[in-house]
Formats: sequence, structure tokens, C-alpha cells
Amino acid sequence: MNGEKDFWAYWKSRQRLVERKIDEFLPKDGPGPRILRDAMRYSLFAGGKRLRPILAIMGYELAGGQDVENEVLPQAAALELIHTFTLIHDDLPAMDDDDYRRGKLSNHKVFGEGIAILAGDTLLVEAIRLFLQGTQPPDVKIEMMNELIDAIGIDGVMGGQAVDLQSEGKKPTEELVRYIHTRKTGRFIRAALVIGGIASRNLSVVEPYRKIGENIGLAFQIADDILDEIGDEATVGKKVHKDRERGKCTYTALYGVAKARSDARRLVDEAIGIARSLFGEDAWPIVELANFIVERTY
Amino acid sequence: MNGEKDFWAYWKSRQRLVERKIDEFLPKDGPGPRILRDAMRYSLFAGGKRLRPILAIMGYELAGGQDVENEVLPQAAALELIHTFTLIHDDLPAMDDDDYRRGKLSNHKVFGEGIAILAGDTLLVEAIRLFLQGTQPPDVKIEMMNELIDAIGIDGVMGGQAVDLQSEGKKPTEELVRYIHTRKTGRFIRAALVIGGIASRNLSVVEPYRKIGENIGLAFQIADDILDEIGDEATVGKKVHKDRERGKCTYTALYGVAKARSDARRLVDEAIGIARSLFGEDAWPIVELANFIVERTY
Repeated sequence: MNGEKDFWAYWKSRQRLVERKIDEFLPKDGPGPRILRDAMRYSLFAGGKRLRPILAIMGYELAGGQDVENEVLPQAAALELIHTFTLIHDDLPAMDDDDYRRGKLSNHKVFGEGIAILAGDTLLVEAIRLFLQGTQPPDVKIEMMNELIDAIGIDGVMGGQAVDLQSEGKKPTEELVRYIHTRKTGRFIRAALVIGGIASRNLSVVEPYRKIGENIGLAFQIADDILDEIGDEATVGKKVHKDRERGKCTYTALYGVAKARSDARRLVDEAIGIARSLFGEDAWPIVELANFIVERTY
Repeated sequence: MNGEKDFWAYWKSRQRLVERKIDEFLPKDGPGPRILRDAMRYSLFAGGKRLRPILAIMGYELAGGQDVENEVLPQAAALELIHTFTLIHDDLPAMDDDDYRRGKLSNHKVFGEGIAILAGDTLLVEAIRLFLQGTQPPDVKIEMMNELIDAIGIDGVMGGQAVDLQSEGKKPTEELVRYIHTRKTGRFIRAALVIGGIASRNLSVVEPYRKIGENIGLAFQIADDILDEIGDEATVGKKVHKDRERGKCTYTALYGVAKARSDARRLVDEAIGIARSLFGEDAWPIVELANFIVERTY
């Protein structure tokens, strides 16, 4: 039985693949203004966990995919560009106004707001280019792309960010917290796993992946809210208690830390159950990842 | 021989098609937060000329395309969503800081900066969804999409905006002005015409369209610089002399109004020549559009 140690070896090897792909796609020297490239790379290489790309690769490999490099890595790496775009814009003064991210100055603190806005925009545009690379047939690429757009569009990450922004100071309700959690984080994490499933062409995994991905995504966001409430600033890498101070509609504000913890655990256990019924013992990377998500301290 | 009067009838009928498509794609009521939808629609329906969609439709029709509705309208309308995204972000305080656009308050003045940033982001994401609609085969959609991404990515509109932002107060040089003009405006206008050509599947038009589109795009940006220099504020719909006051690297700052005018005329005449040699008298919509672009007062 594989355990935590094997998981970190698995995780690090996929991280390296993703980071190599991003570096190849957006090297230090290349067309376009240097400042824009520097700003994009600054946030891309600021120590992200690469959760979304790794979920895509994991979803592909578990379902039987055999050619990570050409069939899923471009799409997986593109997810990280998009995630980075959302973080840069989310940190802007007009949004969450965060000076630090992952223990480093946020993009606009280094490059100024104008370039930070453009760096985010450009990451999104260039992510589409990268997403369309690789050897998948055009119809499969478009199917994966539509899955992505559903996850990040007006009723996905973008909608979640807008509601989150507007929710400051409002009384948290179940409906509001649920919308923010599913849209701002849940659907994108779910899409990552589903895109890996589509890439594998083993379409029997797609529906179970939706449920696993949804649960992992919600648990991830609940864990984020818990970290804001009780996390250690140095370990988390950004200011804590910030959501609470701004009166954000978080899971912990609504239910408290104890219930948040048990709900996250329940979501993750359900995801683990589905993964085990799909893949038996081979499900171990998803099991370990799901456990990491609720136990993480950063 | 068709003339100016026929051209406006042509223009208005295609404008209506594009506006109907946008309204259908992003109706007042639909999924996602209402405020985001309202903000997106506010700028989408703020009186744009619809130049880029009309160029795509024109390129398709002149090359023999017979099914505007299904083979080019989704892509054409998506270009307007993307153009609108660039305008919203360009008007932000951290960018060009414009309070007015087309005679109306700019997006962030109405909805606040946070929602304006998200409205721009969401227009870009949803544009990709719209761009992938219609009956074109998947490989043709991807070919059109790659043309678009080249035009708006790090060495396209985004790169042009970054250099434009950084050029404030710098001595205008030929190289700098050329980069800003080709990237910020030229390539996107060129791509619109080329995408129409690809959609028609009459691939013999693609290379001539590149040259026509490039010239029209550059002439359009030169005309924009002239309008900032000598335009009437009420007619232009935004503050004039603004580029001059901010020390922007414009064509008129480098060469003066007289040379700017004659250069724009020369570019447009060359484009007209190529269009006539392609289509003879049938080229009239491009001829009239090209003339409008250098003679426009708004």
C-alpha cells in the first residue's frame, strides 16, 4: 500500500513536469514586452502548489492515459496560468487588497497596478493558446475547453469572485456561502479532474470525477476559510484573519471552525469512497491528495 | 457602382446581427451574479461601432461565405466581447484613467473598480465560449482561435497596452510608436478580417486579407491619434488632448497631424488597391469602410 511518502514523490514529480512546461511555454526571453513577461513569470513561479494541474494529470493517469506530455500536460499547465491570473486580480486593491501572497509581495506591489492587471489578462489569453496545444484531436480539445469555460466564466470563478466582493459586511447565509464556495473554488478544481478524465478518453470516469472534484473543491475552500481563522501567518504565507476583519461570508463565519472541520472531513471521505470504488488500491494518489487538502496548514 | 449610402445600409444590417447575437448570448437574465451581467452589458451596449465583428463578417461574405449566422457570427460577436474587455480595463485608473467612453461614464465609474475588473475578465472568458459556438468543424474553430490569440496575446493587444502604459512621458521614437500601433490596434483588426477569411474556407483570401487588415488597422490607430489631437470632444465621445497631456507616444506626437493624415490615406489606398484586385467592383464594402476609417470624426 502506498502512503504519504510515495505521495510526495508523486506530487513533486508532477509539479516538476508542470513547472518545466510553463517555463518552456513562457520563457524569460520571448516576444512581447519584457516587463509583462517578468510580471507573469513572477507570479507563476512564486511557489504555487500546482493543485489544479496535478489533479488534471492524476485524473488522466488513473483513468489509463499513457502520454502525459502530449495529451494532458498542455491543458494542465494552462490551468495554472488561469489560476495565477485569478490570484493576481484578486489581490488588487480594488478587490481583496492583499499585499502578500505565498509569503512574497503580491504582483501589483512589485510591478504596479496597471502591469498587474495586464499580466493577469495576458495569463488568461496565453492560457488559451497553451490549452490548445498537444496532440488531442480538435473536438477533444474543444470539449475540454468548454469544461474549463463553464468552471471559470460568469457562473464560475468570475461569478464567485463578484459575489465574494459584494458580500463584504453582509450577514453570511448558507446560500451565499455555498455560491461563493462552489463558484470561486469548487468548480475550477472539479473541472481540473474532469479535464484529465476527458483527456484519457476513458469517459466512464467523467461523472464520478465530477463528484470527487466537487467534494475536494469544497473541502479545499472550507480549509482555506479555516486557515484564515486559525492559521499561522508565516506558514500560510499571507495575512490571516483578513476575511474575518473584512466581514467576508466564509464557512467559518457561518458555522464555526468545529463544524467546518467535520464538514470538510465528510466531503473528503465521500470523495475517497468514490475514488476507491473506481480504482481500488490504485486510487491512493487521490486518497492522499484528499487527505492533504483537509489537513493542510498552508 | 455602390456608394456611401449602400455602405451604411450594409453596415447597419450587420451591426444589428452582431448586437442581436450578443444580446442572445448574454441576455439580461441568466446564470451568475446580476451585477456582473449588468456591468458587462453596460459596456457592450454603449454604442460601439462594431468594427471588428463587421470586418469578420465582411471578410467571410466577400470570400463567398453563405451562412453568416452559423459560420462566422459567433466568432464575429466574440471579437466585440474581447474588444469591450480591453476598453473596460484600459479605462481603469491604473491604466488610462478615463471617466468617459463613447460619451457615457466608463464602466468603473458606474460599477466600481472591482466589478469593472471582473466584468472585463468575464467578457474575455465568455468570449471564448461564444467563439467556439456555431457549425464550423473543430479544426477550423481552433485555427480561427489561434489567429485571435496571436492578435491579443503577449505580443498583441496585451503587449501593446503594456508598452503604451510604460511609454508615458518617454520621447516618442519610430520603433515605439510602431510597436504600440501594430500591437494595440493593428493586429486585432487584421485578425478580424483574417478570421472571416478562414471561416469562408476560401483560403486564397487569407494572405491578401492580412495585408488589407494590417493597413486598415494602422490607419485606424493613426486616425485615433489625430482625433485626440484635433477632434471635437462631443463628437469623439471622450476627452481629447488626453494622450498629448499624458505625453503618450502617438503618431501625431512623432510626425505631426499633416504627415499622419497622408500616411493614413496612403495605407488605406494600398488596402483598397489589394481589395479591388481581389474582388473588383464587389470590393465596395471594404473600399467604403477603409475610406470611413481615415475620414471618421468619432
